[in-house]
Amino acid sequence: MSFTLVGEDAQTRARAGVLKTPHGEVETPVFMPVATQGSVKALSQEDLESLGVKAILSNSYHLYLRPGTPTIKEAGGLHRFMDYKGMILTDSGGFQVLSQADLRKIDDDGVSFRSHIDGSSHRLTPEKVIEIQSELGSDCWTALDECPPYPSTEAQARQALERTMNWLDLSATAFLKKRAEGASALFFPILQGGFFPELRLRATEHMAKIPADGISLGGFSVGEPKNLTWDILGRTIEHLPREKPRYLMGVGTPEDLWDAVASGVDMMDCVWPTRVARNGQVMTRAGRYNIGGSACRRDFRPLEESCRCFVCARYTRAYLSHLHRSRELSFYRLISYHNLHLMFEIAREIRKSIVDGNFAQSRRAFFSGLSKERAAA
Amino acid sequence: MSFTLVGEDAQTRARAGVLKTPHGEVETPVFMPVATQGSVKALSQEDLESLGVKAILSNSYHLYLRPGTPTIKEAGGLHRFMDYKGMILTDSGGFQVLSQADLRKIDDDGVSFRSHIDGSSHRLTPEKVIEIQSELGSDCWTALDECPPYPSTEAQARQALERTMNWLDLSATAFLKKRAEGASALFFPILQGGFFPELRLRATEHMAKIPADGISLGGFSVGEPKNLTWDILGRTIEHLPREKPRYLMGVGTPEDLWDAVASGVDMMDCVWPTRVARNGQVMTRAGRYNIGGSACRRDFRPLEESCRCFVCARYTRAYLSHLHRSRELSFYRLISYHNLHLMFEIAREIRKSIVDGNFAQSRRAFFSGLSKERAAA
Repeated sequence: MSFTLVGEDAQTRARAGVLKTPHGEVETPVFMPVATQGSVKALSQEDLESLGVKAILSNSYHLYLRPGTPTIKEAGGLHRFMDYKGMILTDSGGFQVLSQADLRKIDDDGVSFRSHIDGSSHRLTPEKVIEIQSELGSDCWTALDECPPYPSTEAQARQALERTMNWLDLSATAFLKKRAEGASALFFPILQGGFFPELRLRATEHMAKIPADGISLGGFSVGEPKNLTWDILGRTIEHLPREKPRYLMGVGTPEDLWDAVASGVDMMDCVWPTRVARNGQVMTRAGRYNIGGSACRRDFRPLEESCRCFVCARYTRAYLSHLHRSRELSFYRLISYHNLHLMFEIAREIRKSIVDGNFAQSRRAFFSGLSKERAAA
Repeated sequence: MSFTLVGEDAQTRARAGVLKTPHGEVETPVFMPVATQGSVKALSQEDLESLGVKAILSNSYHLYLRPGTPTIKEAGGLHRFMDYKGMILTDSGGFQVLSQADLRKIDDDGVSFRSHIDGSSHRLTPEKVIEIQSELGSDCWTALDECPPYPSTEAQARQALERTMNWLDLSATAFLKKRAEGASALFFPILQGGFFPELRLRATEHMAKIPADGISLGGFSVGEPKNLTWDILGRTIEHLPREKPRYLMGVGTPEDLWDAVASGVDMMDCVWPTRVARNGQVMTRAGRYNIGGSACRRDFRPLEESCRCFVCARYTRAYLSHLHRSRELSFYRLISYHNLHLMFEIAREIRKSIVDGNFAQSRRAFFSGLSKERAAA
């Protein structure tokens, strides 16, 4: 088994574990920063190392289009191309292709689309997506899926699920062939079903027959209200096997981290901490604030007084506010670093609280530390 | 004396020295990266430290407008505002104000102008420029000057010089007052005179009466041909006192570094290495090349094979070319760092060759290593 549970919370579904991958062990719950194009935006691999990043998400669709899988294969795989030594999970690209409605055509066998970069024509099939991930040499592979938009009718969500399940059977066959040929990657197929409990149940029953090492929970974080996310997520996870890691795709914020883990999630990824950073949003334990606000201009405190990241150790809000208003490039890196530092600190706290048996109390303490004003910033 | 010569070349005017400043000793010849707005573009102060940067240039005009001198004063000065511990030389802003011809009006007592940021009205006088630098707490202060454009008639250049000399008398008085009040900064007034040897001679004669700790050589690098730069620079420097450091403003490239030092220059600054980096130009000992070129896409060598910077230690041209084409923000920092690393390596070599008594040979070896193809890139 590649996944070992080391602790489970008595009051919630929270669990702590260790995922063994071809590029190291990853302690869960884990938050994975996103390196869509082979770079966590504004950061370098030295930064990831000093942040203690052991797992990232990358995107097979983006890398297939640019620089192209032949280049990455020639480099010796994505790890060597980036010179990043930790675990890489690759998204299938289904979400990216399908979100560009005017550039693609979907049929029962796959998706035809035009490149958003140069307009060239491409086709992704379940087998092709496995092949791309094999060439990238990532550690955890997903499968081509159809992610229905929000809102969708039950009929739309059912059609997308049927297609996803058919594709998953083909993906599993392609994956097993690669494994038989010596591939050491783990298989993390994507479970869909929209926001319909019956469809999600059907998806879990189908997933039970798939040789999955972990289960990717897709179709969330597509614009639905948060209570719906947690409701459907909870109803889905209760039908999933205890022994397999669960990866919730595209979530989230520090609050989401606690809530997803309480629902039984082990792995998450999101562009959120670095995206809001580039917009000047500083994350703190009390919530977030905008460095562009006039209150920061002559505020000589660090971004967050309790923070121990290198940015908070030496730069003030006033200086970072100046870099932001002056559009200095260094700004993007410094705020992105601080925001990710907080995400990892929280993820470590969450794990420790599960192991120590006080997850629920720690979660309450975290939420009670949020300021209403800041959370609304 | 704040400046000590430790070596002089027998064949050229090249010299090696040490400049003692309120923020440390600076070994000359020195190349100073430019932190116009209090940040060397795309780099952090940690990067400056790992590059071994001991001196930077900042711009009093830009900082006066944003964030404003009161903010920097409240921070405890520009060093503390940036958290940078080395020497800071501040440009007077004359060049910046005067290059915005439609936003300013010059008269015998100073310059009135509108802010390029918000259109607000401001006035700089010689005394005001000293006051701003005092509030910034920089180590080496310049003086308000009028830099004539290239080309200018002799009459235009003479008028600008007359004004610059009048302003310099007022600046010197204001500086001496600050020194009497306890300021420890060094005074580096700017010498003008355009490209007219007679005017430059006149300027040096006037400068001899000024209590200058060092002499800033202004009015170069304004679009003139390089042979004219070195001709007029040489004719100017031969009339300057041996014991004072000479700072050539706004120059240059690695080639310029060797040539300026051969002309007797001790200090230089330029945005060039970081500006070309942001455009994808990689500096090497053979010249420069564009990382965006198709040859780099599948080239798995470092940016420069002999380079020992952290970028060359782990990233390939193929990866950096991918970051460039994908417009990833990390690109700007990585190439800027590499380019500055080469500038400092060359500056250290120049100094060592002067001390070791083989400057001329080292200079020839450097130029013979340039590839015609690359130099034209």
